[in-house]
Amino acid sequence: MTMLEKRTPIPVEEAVARCMAHAHKLPVITVPLADSLGYYTAEAITATYDIPMFDKSPYDGYAVRSVDTIGASGDNRISFRTVDHIGAGAVSSHAVQQNEAVRIMTGAPIPEGADAVVMLEQTVETEEGFTVRKSFKSGENIAVQGEECKAGELVLPAGTLITAGVQAVLATFSYSTVPVRRKPSVALIATGTELAAIDEPLTPGKIRNSNGPMIAGQLAELRIKAATYEVTADDYDHLLALIKEALQTHDIIITTGGVSVGDYDYMPDIYKALEADVLFNKVAMRPGSVTTVASLENQLLFGLSGNPSACYSGFELFAKPVIKKLMGATNCYSPVIEAELTEDFLKANPFTRFIRAELDVINRTVKPAGFNKSNAVVAIAKSNSMIMLPGGTRGFQAGDKVQVIITKLTDVASW
Amino acid sequence: MTMLEKRTPIPVEEAVARCMAHAHKLPVITVPLADSLGYYTAEAITATYDIPMFDKSPYDGYAVRSVDTIGASGDNRISFRTVDHIGAGAVSSHAVQQNEAVRIMTGAPIPEGADAVVMLEQTVETEEGFTVRKSFKSGENIAVQGEECKAGELVLPAGTLITAGVQAVLATFSYSTVPVRRKPSVALIATGTELAAIDEPLTPGKIRNSNGPMIAGQLAELRIKAATYEVTADDYDHLLALIKEALQTHDIIITTGGVSVGDYDYMPDIYKALEADVLFNKVAMRPGSVTTVASLENQLLFGLSGNPSACYSGFELFAKPVIKKLMGATNCYSPVIEAELTEDFLKANPFTRFIRAELDVINRTVKPAGFNKSNAVVAIAKSNSMIMLPGGTRGFQAGDKVQVIITKLTDVASW
Repeated sequence: MTMLEKRTPIPVEEAVARCMAHAHKLPVITVPLADSLGYYTAEAITATYDIPMFDKSPYDGYAVRSVDTIGASGDNRISFRTVDHIGAGAVSSHAVQQNEAVRIMTGAPIPEGADAVVMLEQTVETEEGFTVRKSFKSGENIAVQGEECKAGELVLPAGTLITAGVQAVLATFSYSTVPVRRKPSVALIATGTELAAIDEPLTPGKIRNSNGPMIAGQLAELRIKAATYEVTADDYDHLLALIKEALQTHDIIITTGGVSVGDYDYMPDIYKALEADVLFNKVAMRPGSVTTVASLENQLLFGLSGNPSACYSGFELFAKPVIKKLMGATNCYSPVIEAELTEDFLKANPFTRFIRAELDVINRTVKPAGFNKSNAVVAIAKSNSMIMLPGGTRGFQAGDKVQVIITKLTDVASW
Repeated sequence: MTMLEKRTPIPVEEAVARCMAHAHKLPVITVPLADSLGYYTAEAITATYDIPMFDKSPYDGYAVRSVDTIGASGDNRISFRTVDHIGAGAVSSHAVQQNEAVRIMTGAPIPEGADAVVMLEQTVETEEGFTVRKSFKSGENIAVQGEECKAGELVLPAGTLITAGVQAVLATFSYSTVPVRRKPSVALIATGTELAAIDEPLTPGKIRNSNGPMIAGQLAELRIKAATYEVTADDYDHLLALIKEALQTHDIIITTGGVSVGDYDYMPDIYKALEADVLFNKVAMRPGSVTTVASLENQLLFGLSGNPSACYSGFELFAKPVIKKLMGATNCYSPVIEAELTEDFLKANPFTRFIRAELDVINRTVKPAGFNKSNAVVAIAKSNSMIMLPGGTRGFQAGDKVQVIITKLTDVASW
C-alpha cells in the first residue's frame, strides 16, 4: 500500500498564477475571416483607410450646393433641376452647378460641387426636379469621410476576442484572412475503473463517465475540439503509455481522476515518470483540493479530480484562463461580481469553497444550484456561476454579500 | 421614380411579438452527445436511475460497521482487521463482520454489512489493519444512493440550452444521443451595388460587405452555419431569383439592405412578388426603422437594414429570439439589466433608440461604445450590450438609469 503522501495546500490565486506563468502564447497563424469567430486577434487592427472612405449620403435624397438654398422658405420655394441620378456604388460624373441637383441614394458618394443633401421627404417634385422650402448648411446630411475613424487609427488591440462585431470590422478593412494564434490541441483522458463509456453496459459498481463529455463540452464552449481518448481503467502502465502517446501531438493533456492519494491513484507516479514539473498538487479549495497541474517544457498536464463538481470547477479555474492565454487573449479570466446570498450556507471550511450557483444578475442575488457535494452533477447543469466563499471559521447567511464567478450568462432573464 | 411609400411604424415590442408569433418549433432529431452543445433539449430529462446509483464512499478509507466503533477514544483505540480491498468500479464479495473492515477507495460501493466509512487520515495502521480513536455514526462518510436525485425525478425541463454541464447530466443518464430540435437552415444574402466582396477590388464608391460576415458571425455565435450567397447588386430580377432559390432549401432568409424606400430598394417589391405576409416594414426604433420581416408559410424573411449598426441590432432584436424559439428554447431573449449612464446622450428622438454600448456589469454602469451613427461599425465590435432609450422628447444625462440588453458578457472584467 502507498504511504499517505503529505501535500502542502497553496491558495487558489497562487495556483492560478503558477499555471499562468507556464502558459505561453501559441504561434500566429492565419484563418479565413469566416472561420475566425472565437479566436483572438494576434495583431492590433489598425484602420487601413478612413471610415467612411468618402463623403457619402446617409439618406435617399438630392445632392445640392448649399449656397443655392439660401433664402428658401414656405413662401419662397427654390427650384432645382435634377441632372443625374445615382445609387449606392455609383459615382456621378456630373459636377453640380448652380441650382442643379443629383438624385442620390443612401451610401452613394457626394458628387463634385455638392456640399449638402436634401432628403426626399424635404422636397416637392416638379417636372424637371423639385423645390425646397428651407435653406441647408454646408455639410448638412453628409456622412463625412473619416468621421467614424481615420486611416492609421488603432481600432482594436491585439488579444481581442473575435466576435461577430469584430468580424464586421475585419471585413470593413479587407481582412479576408485574419492573423490569430492557433488554438491549443487538447487531449482528454478520463480515468477510473468505475467508469463506463456511454455505450458500455452499467455493471454493478460502475457509473457513467460524465467528466469526459463535460470537459469536452467546456472545451467546445471555447470552440476547441478535444481529442478524446478511450476511458481508461486505473492501470499505471496503460495510463502512462496513453499519456506519453498524447504528449506526442498535444499541447495540453487533461485527465480526470487518479490525482488523489488512493491506492489506485496513479497520476502522481505518472508525473514522476514523465519527469514533469508538478506546479501544485494541493489547492486550498473545496471541492477539488487534489487538483494537480504539471508542466513539461511547453506542455501542460491538468490533473482534474474525478468528482464531477470538482472536475468542472478545476477546468473553469485553471484550464480555461490558461487556454485563453495560449490563444493570446488579453482578458483571460471570467467576470466576478458581488451578489447577495439568498440561502444560508452554514458549513464553514478552512479552504476557499466554490459552489455551482444560480446568479440572478438583474437582482444581484445568488444561491447554490442544488445539491452541491463534490460528486454532484445536476447542479453543474443548473448553474450559471460559482459562488466563491473565502475559507474561515464561519458560515454564510442569507443576506451576506459574496463574490460570484460568472461562468455563463445565457438564459438568465427575459426581455 | 417610385412613389414615396407611406409606412406606419409599430413599437419594437409589437414587432418582436409579431415575429415570435410566426416562429414555430422545428422537428425533433437526435444528435450524438458530443455534438449537442448549443442545441436545446427537446424533451424533459428525467432521472433514469438514482444518483448516486448505490451507496458509495466519498473518500479513500475503510468501510466498517459503526456499531463496532462505539466507545472508541484516544485512550481506547479500537482495532479493525482488513479483510478485503476494493477500488472504485469493484464490488467486494465480502460481507463485513464484527471488527472487520474493507479498504475502499473513493467512488466504490459500500460492502454489505458496513454502514460507515473511516477516512484514511482517521486511522493508525496496524499489522492486520488499523485502529480508530473515535466512534462513527451509522451513515457517516457515505454518499447515499439517490441523495442527489431519485429515479423518475425531473432533472432538466425541455427547452434547456445544452451546455457542458447539461452534457455531463446527459452522459450520467446514458444519453449517447440527445433529442433536440434541429437548427434552422439560414440563407444570408447581402445586397447593394456598393458592396465589394472581401476578395474584390474596392473601386470608387464601393465599400466592403461587412454585414454579410457580421450576420454570419452572429449566427455562428448561436452555432449556426449560414449558407452565404454571393453579394448581390441592386437588381430586382436577379435578387428575386436568388431569394426564390434560397427559399427552396432554407427556413430563414436574411437579407441586408434594400428595405428602404429608395429607388434601388427592391425588397418591398420582392415581398409582394413572393406574396409573403409582411409582418411589419417600419419599427419605431433608431437605427433600423426600415427593418422588415415577412412570413411565407413556415418560412421567415428578415429584411435587415444595410447600415451595419441597424443590421446588427435588427438581428439581435428580431432574428435571434426567433431562431432560439425555432430550436425550442424556453428563454429566447437576451438578459436586460438596469445600469447607470456615464455619458450624456442628449439627442432626443420620438423612436426607441438602441445604442451599441459598453456595459460594466460589476459597477452597473454603461456608455456608448464609440461613434454611434447607424452606419458605424467599430462601435459594434467594442460593444457587449445595447442601451435601450425610450422614445420621447428629452435626452439622457450621465447618472440616469437606463435599460441595457446584454449581447455578450465575455472579457468584461478580470478575476
